[in-house]
Amino acid sequence: MNDFTFQCSTKIVFGRGAERCVGEETARFSKNILLHYGGGSIKRSGLYDRVMASLAGQGIHVTELGGVEPNPRLDLVYRGIELCREKNIDFILAVGGGSVIDSAKAIALGVKYPGDVWELFAETGTVGEVLPTGNILTIPASGTEAGNGTVVKNMALGLKRNVNDQKLRPQFTILNPELTLSLSPLQTACGVSDMLSHVLERYFAPEKNVEYTDRLCEATMKTIIHNGLRAVRDPGDCNARAELMWCGTVAHNDFLQTGRTPDFASHKIDHEVNAVCDCTHGASIAVLFLAWCRYVYTKHIDKFAQFAVRVFDAEMNFENPAETAREGIARLERFYHDLGLSTRLRDLGVEKSDFATIAKNCKTFAGDKVGNLEKISRDDMLDILEIAY
Amino acid sequence: MNDFTFQCSTKIVFGRGAERCVGEETARFSKNILLHYGGGSIKRSGLYDRVMASLAGQGIHVTELGGVEPNPRLDLVYRGIELCREKNIDFILAVGGGSVIDSAKAIALGVKYPGDVWELFAETGTVGEVLPTGNILTIPASGTEAGNGTVVKNMALGLKRNVNDQKLRPQFTILNPELTLSLSPLQTACGVSDMLSHVLERYFAPEKNVEYTDRLCEATMKTIIHNGLRAVRDPGDCNARAELMWCGTVAHNDFLQTGRTPDFASHKIDHEVNAVCDCTHGASIAVLFLAWCRYVYTKHIDKFAQFAVRVFDAEMNFENPAETAREGIARLERFYHDLGLSTRLRDLGVEKSDFATIAKNCKTFAGDKVGNLEKISRDDMLDILEIAY
Repeated sequence: MNDFTFQCSTKIVFGRGAERCVGEETARFSKNILLHYGGGSIKRSGLYDRVMASLAGQGIHVTELGGVEPNPRLDLVYRGIELCREKNIDFILAVGGGSVIDSAKAIALGVKYPGDVWELFAETGTVGEVLPTGNILTIPASGTEAGNGTVVKNMALGLKRNVNDQKLRPQFTILNPELTLSLSPLQTACGVSDMLSHVLERYFAPEKNVEYTDRLCEATMKTIIHNGLRAVRDPGDCNARAELMWCGTVAHNDFLQTGRTPDFASHKIDHEVNAVCDCTHGASIAVLFLAWCRYVYTKHIDKFAQFAVRVFDAEMNFENPAETAREGIARLERFYHDLGLSTRLRDLGVEKSDFATIAKNCKTFAGDKVGNLEKISRDDMLDILEIAY
Repeated sequence: MNDFTFQCSTKIVFGRGAERCVGEETARFSKNILLHYGGGSIKRSGLYDRVMASLAGQGIHVTELGGVEPNPRLDLVYRGIELCREKNIDFILAVGGGSVIDSAKAIALGVKYPGDVWELFAETGTVGEVLPTGNILTIPASGTEAGNGTVVKNMALGLKRNVNDQKLRPQFTILNPELTLSLSPLQTACGVSDMLSHVLERYFAPEKNVEYTDRLCEATMKTIIHNGLRAVRDPGDCNARAELMWCGTVAHNDFLQTGRTPDFASHKIDHEVNAVCDCTHGASIAVLFLAWCRYVYTKHIDKFAQFAVRVFDAEMNFENPAETAREGIARLERFYHDLGLSTRLRDLGVEKSDFATIAKNCKTFAGDKVGNLEKISRDDMLDILEIAY
């Protein structure tokens, strides 16, 4: 186990009708806020009206900025920053899925930053003062609602980049599983794949002697898998929705990586796949993670066998652990299929001719590689993309 | 699953030599602190010197108050409150086990409270402003290092009482597993039993549809059981010590009770057992929890069978689930024996003649009962104490 520091101070307000306390939670921080959201779904569902009523009940002045798209765009972030500066706004409330929350966090990063906020994503600038944010989550998936990161897409450069900083953790997140009952099976499946990927990336860490966090990851994955299938088969199952919603938040608030180094190679490659094809992260990360498994598992038979046995209840083949390891990967693929997801890049609109761009743009670290369980070079990426195709 | 609010903002600083950052962490809050500790063990071990050096390095003025005893006494809390008022101290640093931290929290409750701090424990007063605290943990057991509660013993009244309030959560806890290598097998066993009891009390909740938290509890219990035995058999096993230390903190920070109502009947009875016999909480809670299991399991065969199968790897007897339920309780008892703990009240110095006092003093709730899985009356308590004897 590695030494670590962990602090997740985001207040979790979980339950039916929880959005009705948004005025009260927001008023602790500000009476002059930016309300940030996506398309019109929160208006059609009536959520918008309930939120506005709760904010009005606390006398909070609201400036609105809608229009966040999936894989949130830097352009809208710039507009949000300008709006906040213009109106002296000091708190941002995001109502929506992970893209809306990430966009809100990117705005929060930029308002007090003297330069171009993209510098923080390009790592040529340093995070300073960050506005506080809060959120009402409508799509359990990205875990950003209590996470320390944000990801945005720079259309001009064709790049998707993230910033991680403790100051980005939201002050509160309001989690009402009833708000997720209207998600389609495909939206649900992509959310399930997204949250599962956050645990998978942390599970396949290089450290030994991490029994507790291994078991916590396994508990989380088993629950996501079981309830993911329930929710896809019966979208109105509120018990399954509630389990998923709480799992999705814990999956990415860093609790599950205490004492260990997450891998995240597949995420780094996937960022560039998303930049090329604009498909949903949950759909493409399933494809890439599976391909990564097939590329690296022979060097980590024990861990992949543990995954098969403890997460997918496979029987351990003591004479041939590699077979057990492969069985775990096969069951993961079957799970994605059962969710209704493809496990081939070709189905997502990615062409082989994109591979070179993806590998070239991928943000690598020291030694020009990504990942921790195995160090993945740009050549490895091309091989993984081939497997994924 | 129940609706819930959860926020644990305590910063966790975990690792070898982590106490060396205590000056830095403390200086964020105050330069004029009370340093609270127990007997001389932190001086003999050298920890005291390292702490004082780190605090001095940040120019922090330190007033000392040692002498905390197990089952911390109200009298010393009064002295601490007087000291803080006299010297305008606004931060309390506890260095020691759960009793030291609880005593520090009780002082923190009392400094700004206009009346007698015992009123807060007797629930005749309301918690107001609470001083911030931080701690360096030396005995993983009570979980109070990141918890929202404190327990003290009023010797004059022969009562042990608790206060729970979000404001009691420490600002930081420093967890260095190397500091626990010198704990004896018996101290270790009592700590293991204590932390396990916190999970057990949360696990046996009345709610259905709590799959995620059930699995998280099971992950925590399996890790405590496995590493508890390792640490008792080989006190120098730092990997086992590290697993236990992190488990002990999570076991009682309320994360494992999100969406569910913990039982805590056994704890309520045990408070009064401790008031009568002054034995270690970890030793007596093992005895009481086992007796409680035997008293209630027939009404909750499914949950006790799940416990047996998932926590102790018992084989499910589908024809006779009650047998599986009993097997789980038997394995829990065997585990306590393997730790070196007794599972009989008579071995702890409790007499049958004490039973009436214990049941009479036990702090009950509405309907004069304790517990949530089953409502335990004072008559039930006498039966449980008989089973435990």
